[in-house]
Amino acid sequence: MSNTFGQLLRVTTFGESHGAGLGVVIDGCPSGHPFPHARVNAQLARRRPGQGRLSSPRREPDGYEVLSGLEPGTGLTLGTPIALLVRNEDARGRAYAELERVYRPSHADYTYDARYGLRAVSGGGRASARETVARVAAGALAEDLLAVAHGVEIVAWVDDVAGIAATVDGERVTREEVDATPVRCPDASVSEAMIEAIDAARRDGDTVGGVVRCVARGVPAGWGAPVFGKLTASLAGALMSLPASRGFEVGEGFAARRMRGSEHNDPFTIDPVDGRIRTVTNRSGGIQGGISNGETIRLAVAFKPVATIFKPQQTVTRDGAQVTYQAKGRHDPCVLPRAVPMVEAMVALVLCDQMLHARLARVDGSL
Amino acid sequence: MSNTFGQLLRVTTFGESHGAGLGVVIDGCPSGHPFPHARVNAQLARRRPGQGRLSSPRREPDGYEVLSGLEPGTGLTLGTPIALLVRNEDARGRAYAELERVYRPSHADYTYDARYGLRAVSGGGRASARETVARVAAGALAEDLLAVAHGVEIVAWVDDVAGIAATVDGERVTREEVDATPVRCPDASVSEAMIEAIDAARRDGDTVGGVVRCVARGVPAGWGAPVFGKLTASLAGALMSLPASRGFEVGEGFAARRMRGSEHNDPFTIDPVDGRIRTVTNRSGGIQGGISNGETIRLAVAFKPVATIFKPQQTVTRDGAQVTYQAKGRHDPCVLPRAVPMVEAMVALVLCDQMLHARLARVDGSL
Amino acid sequence: MSNTFGQLLRVTTFGESHGAGLGVVIDGCPSGHPFPHARVNAQLARRRPGQGRLSSPRREPDGYEVLSGLEPGTGLTLGTPIALLVRNEDARGRAYAELERVYRPSHADYTYDARYGLRAVSGGGRASARETVARVAAGALAEDLLAVAHGVEIVAWVDDVAGIAATVDGERVTREEVDATPVRCPDASVSEAMIEAIDAARRDGDTVGGVVRCVARGVPAGWGAPVFGKLTASLAGALMSLPASRGFEVGEGFAARRMRGSEHNDPFTIDPVDGRIRTVTNRSGGIQGGISNGETIRLAVAFKPVATIFKPQQTVTRDGAQVTYQAKGRHDPCVLPRAVPMVEAMVALVLCDQMLHARLARVDGSL
Amino acid sequence: MSNTFGQLLRVTTFGESHGAGLGVVIDGCPSGHPFPHARVNAQLARRRPGQGRLSSPRREPDGYEVLSGLEPGTGLTLGTPIALLVRNEDARGRAYAELERVYRPSHADYTYDARYGLRAVSGGGRASARETVARVAAGALAEDLLAVAHGVEIVAWVDDVAGIAATVDGERVTREEVDATPVRCPDASVSEAMIEAIDAARRDGDTVGGVVRCVARGVPAGWGAPVFGKLTASLAGALMSLPASRGFEVGEGFAARRMRGSEHNDPFTIDPVDGRIRTVTNRSGGIQGGISNGETIRLAVAFKPVATIFKPQQTVTRDGAQVTYQAKGRHDPCVLPRAVPMVEAMVALVLCDQMLHARLARVDGSL
Repeated sequence: MSNTFGQLLRVTTFGESHGAGLGVVIDGCPSGHPFPHARVNAQLARRRPGQGRLSSPRREPDGYEVLSGLEPGTGLTLGTPIALLVRNEDARGRAYAELERVYRPSHADYTYDARYGLRAVSGGGRASARETVARVAAGALAEDLLAVAHGVEIVAWVDDVAGIAATVDGERVTREEVDATPVRCPDASVSEAMIEAIDAARRDGDTVGGVVRCVARGVPAGWGAPVFGKLTASLAGALMSLPASRGFEVGEGFAARRMRGSEHNDPFTIDPVDGRIRTVTNRSGGIQGGISNGETIRLAVAFKPVATIFKPQQTVTRDGAQVTYQAKGRHDPCVLPRAVPMVEAMVALVLCDQMLHARLARVDGSL
Repeated sequence: MSNTFGQLLRVTTFGESHGAGLGVVIDGCPSGHPFPHARVNAQLARRRPGQGRLSSPRREPDGYEVLSGLEPGTGLTLGTPIALLVRNEDARGRAYAELERVYRPSHADYTYDARYGLRAVSGGGRASARETVARVAAGALAEDLLAVAHGVEIVAWVDDVAGIAATVDGERVTREEVDATPVRCPDASVSEAMIEAIDAARRDGDTVGGVVRCVARGVPAGWGAPVFGKLTASLAGALMSLPASRGFEVGEGFAARRMRGSEHNDPFTIDPVDGRIRTVTNRSGGIQGGISNGETIRLAVAFKPVATIFKPQQTVTRDGAQVTYQAKGRHDPCVLPRAVPMVEAMVALVLCDQMLHARLARVDGSL
Repeated sequence: MSNTFGQLLRVTTFGESHGAGLGVVIDGCPSGHPFPHARVNAQLARRRPGQGRLSSPRREPDGYEVLSGLEPGTGLTLGTPIALLVRNEDARGRAYAELERVYRPSHADYTYDARYGLRAVSGGGRASARETVARVAAGALAEDLLAVAHGVEIVAWVDDVAGIAATVDGERVTREEVDATPVRCPDASVSEAMIEAIDAARRDGDTVGGVVRCVARGVPAGWGAPVFGKLTASLAGALMSLPASRGFEVGEGFAARRMRGSEHNDPFTIDPVDGRIRTVTNRSGGIQGGISNGETIRLAVAFKPVATIFKPQQTVTRDGAQVTYQAKGRHDPCVLPRAVPMVEAMVALVLCDQMLHARLARVDGSL
Repeated sequence: MSNTFGQLLRVTTFGESHGAGLGVVIDGCPSGHPFPHARVNAQLARRRPGQGRLSSPRREPDGYEVLSGLEPGTGLTLGTPIALLVRNEDARGRAYAELERVYRPSHADYTYDARYGLRAVSGGGRASARETVARVAAGALAEDLLAVAHGVEIVAWVDDVAGIAATVDGERVTREEVDATPVRCPDASVSEAMIEAIDAARRDGDTVGGVVRCVARGVPAGWGAPVFGKLTASLAGALMSLPASRGFEVGEGFAARRMRGSEHNDPFTIDPVDGRIRTVTNRSGGIQGGISNGETIRLAVAFKPVATIFKPQQTVTRDGAQVTYQAKGRHDPCVLPRAVPMVEAMVALVLCDQMLHARLARVDGSL
């Protein structure tokens, strides 16, 4: 079921980079919810290429057509599948003719051919990051459901570019602060250096990687399921499905390897104001035993540098010839800024699915 | 479906730490395979507690009973569900009575209660790492299927304890080398320091974390499915379902954030011996576009320090009283050595599932 | 996922007729429900062989062991998987040695061999009706959840044996009335004739088929999902998974082919007592557009005559020899009476799954 | 997953009768198969309304757009999701305004409202039989895969209208013979009487039901999985998801209740020509123990008379008023002729899914 994500809110995406378009079918959305066009458009706008010198110049308005699932007039969800279609407008199939023979290093060309015996050559086909437009649209609906039902807020930001690391207070950061710079890093002390690193790479015909960090605030205790449905597992599986992702962590993540239990454990306490059980620290990143504990969920995703560079590279052809390849076309020197809404979308899809699961956890359905 | 893992090879585990036992139902195993008792026993032995001063003194023989799925006499798989049961022998329900009221910091006590309104108090119930005995048994069958069909070899080792990092050649390391020291680190230059770090933590009533690294050698090109079924995603979801896991990476992982595309890309070449397409380097960790490229798959999992420490800790009770808690009982000061077969098991389950998927990828079923 | 039934209440069964035992893992049962031992035992007793001259003389006490999922002491469901194991006691592997070579007509011997290349020869292995012991146990839990939450009552009865048809008022019939005769037909005017038909077939070394009819009373309007999750579809899939089932119908079923729309349609009316929307007639069998309308759900399942007869039959061996086969062993001359609790179990599993689905249908979760 | 059908060939449909259109996403289709446009168009044409006086005068060209999944130029399947969209052209939302208040008897109006609190009023929304256009398109692809791989032929026909029953030789009947009359009954001795029965009903403002029978020839032995994945179960679930279906049977079906085992059993024999194991008779309808035995699969589906009649009917409004309702609009007096390709589509989807499953049944993947 490799093109479907989720169990109760099920998102099936389809489409190739340079075909008719990209789309998504969202099944399991409860009925009676006003479809959040503004939120969907806002997140699509943040994901869109052509946002300035940090991203690909490809021009896609990324307007979506609602094919099904909404009540005419009211725009309320019907409970039946919601299908959205984003047409490809600026597809330039011709520009990629060389790629029919040549395997681009560290792209999916060779592996798709190895699996399927053929592939949609233009623009990377299904392996293109353009596929994420469908997820971002679905994720915006999911975060709206979360916001309305529980006031959940999901905010991601670029936390590291080329090793330049930011310091951001996840308890307070807003999307407005994130969007204040084109690199989507809300730490003003490093954002300019990040931009410069990206520009420098572009000037060199090269690319850079980095880390996106994300928080989900307001998630109640009790979401996530034991064993294979742990929040750690479902978030990891979701985020590591993003193109170019190479690492994932929650809470202290890899840094936990240097901590002792007495440093890492989060003491429990009672909130003096509302009497709620809280933790004094949040090393756990809001997840204990795979289930949310009511604290802010904290996670990070590492992205590799973009594979398309404008330097000559050694590679091979489908027929086994060794050749030198030099990329042409439109490509981001760094995916990080546009990955921010993608990370938010995947986190929203996981949490919305778990919100629905949690409603079924007890005989009294009290969550 | 939180207790079921996999799509084509489906593994459903059940059981609580101090109940009747732990078990697993494996559905989708092809018929006609000799059940690999030796391999299952070997991996269970490596996971077993009581292996020495580095692990919990709980004594469990962990013999398993085959309840179904094998042909009497031959031991061949029937194609019907294989159910295995491991009885709990050394369960001491009484020893944990205090835990009915007190929430242990950074354990799953509070979150299970938040979700379910009750929980199996003794020994952590379903949240106990004892649950992994079922997965390790199933994983051993999976790796046997992989070994017979494609000669796949999966080897994991302790790569970091408390920040002490090893250097290991993933192309060559063997399980024998891994098991040569009780800490399961094949780098002799650091294994003693790791053991000392664990001993020091235990003497302090404390615990340490670390990193397990794993390779899968011999995976053919073409395994893994686009989008949500990427190897990166399915491996991440699998590994981050292990107790105490906090981070996951493939290939260069988080280090990729400091690399440029020209450093990270893996040039393709033709193997002069067999004419096969290979990469000169393996920064991608054997996965490109979510699909295997025929190179060694490389991944790592970060584990937090064990939550059970023997120092007084601030916490709360179910009734909202603030109390001090001091752990008793049998616990590992470091999960890393026993996590090695768990990591191998989850990698095997993912790869075996993908091996079956790959058989269906083309009309000619050639993979 | 051929051994797992259901999406939200997921039932995985395992075991062969003459192996260690039969079992079931129930995942997704909400926490906090008192496990209904009395109900499970009652339904297992009704399914049990050896209930008199109408069923197989095989003796199985069919006591079950709870392997996991219940809180010690209280017996409340934990929300984690509930595993039940029923040991095989009276397995006589030796009695079936001839069957290693001979394919019994209209059994699963040949088709299992065709699919798997081998099979559990003794007692039919996984194809034996003994497999249903696991479903009946799970179904009893499901009907308890339905009864507690909504007062749903499920009653099945033998409605036809060998063409002798009963007349039963589905709005009122009780299990006590059903169990008043060994043939489980509550219509006293035909039950003796049915028993005689079964006895006559046994005397001839032959077998008979028939129809089990079932009602579910008290199902609220709004259960069942559009398109592939229709109640008609999910009930049909569930019931036609029972051994020897050959037909299924809801409401008027096949008789609807002779009716005009003006005869078949159910006029709506307002209940003068409670103001609820009702139908005047119930041709629809409580299901319209695949979703329950609050009326009694009515369905029927046709069962073929048992394949094991004690007359010589023409058949072939694995090696392609034409031989004459004469059955030995313990077999029911008619499955109908024992099929009654099996039908109830499958109906309960479908409805319980749909009850959980219905909780998620609207943003306000009001169902 | 109520809008997704299948496990390995997964078909997700979307769309409402009077929205933008109907669509389907087909995931899991192996790569390298030429997309069978001719077959898809042919089956859509057979399902189309407006085929003459026996069906609704709604005019829909039902051309489909391929949104994804095919290689440009060659039209070969890419292995990625194939999305097809059929636009609604002749949607007349206005014509149905009265239906916002009135619940039509034996339609899905009331039950959708009960479940979702709202519904797509026009044309029945998702409950309309127009939804099946998406399945018929997907089913045509499935039957093409079956035909190419195994020469499987699926032929359905109208076997009964209003109690007028046909006699048809399922081993030989062709689609050409079926389509020779507008009622799609290949038995010339009754087809005129069927047509007259439909015409008579229409003249009376009434409707009639009937039975569609279907065969699948050429299915190899070994398809179908034990227990819940039996062919009987998966076919029943598939066919009973069709609008207006009320009953399902395989082989002798309900008639088996009158047969003794000695009459119903199918003796095995060896085919003198090819040495293959065959059955002398085919009472089992090609399925034994839920698995195909290589004989022709035989099944039937009963359909109720269309709910929309043009006589005054007693009903209620959303607000609880008792009113008289008289239908207007465009409706079939009998769904049977158009149900023929729908039945074929669902049978094809089940068999194609099982064909893929069968490839995984054994370690040597020989099926």
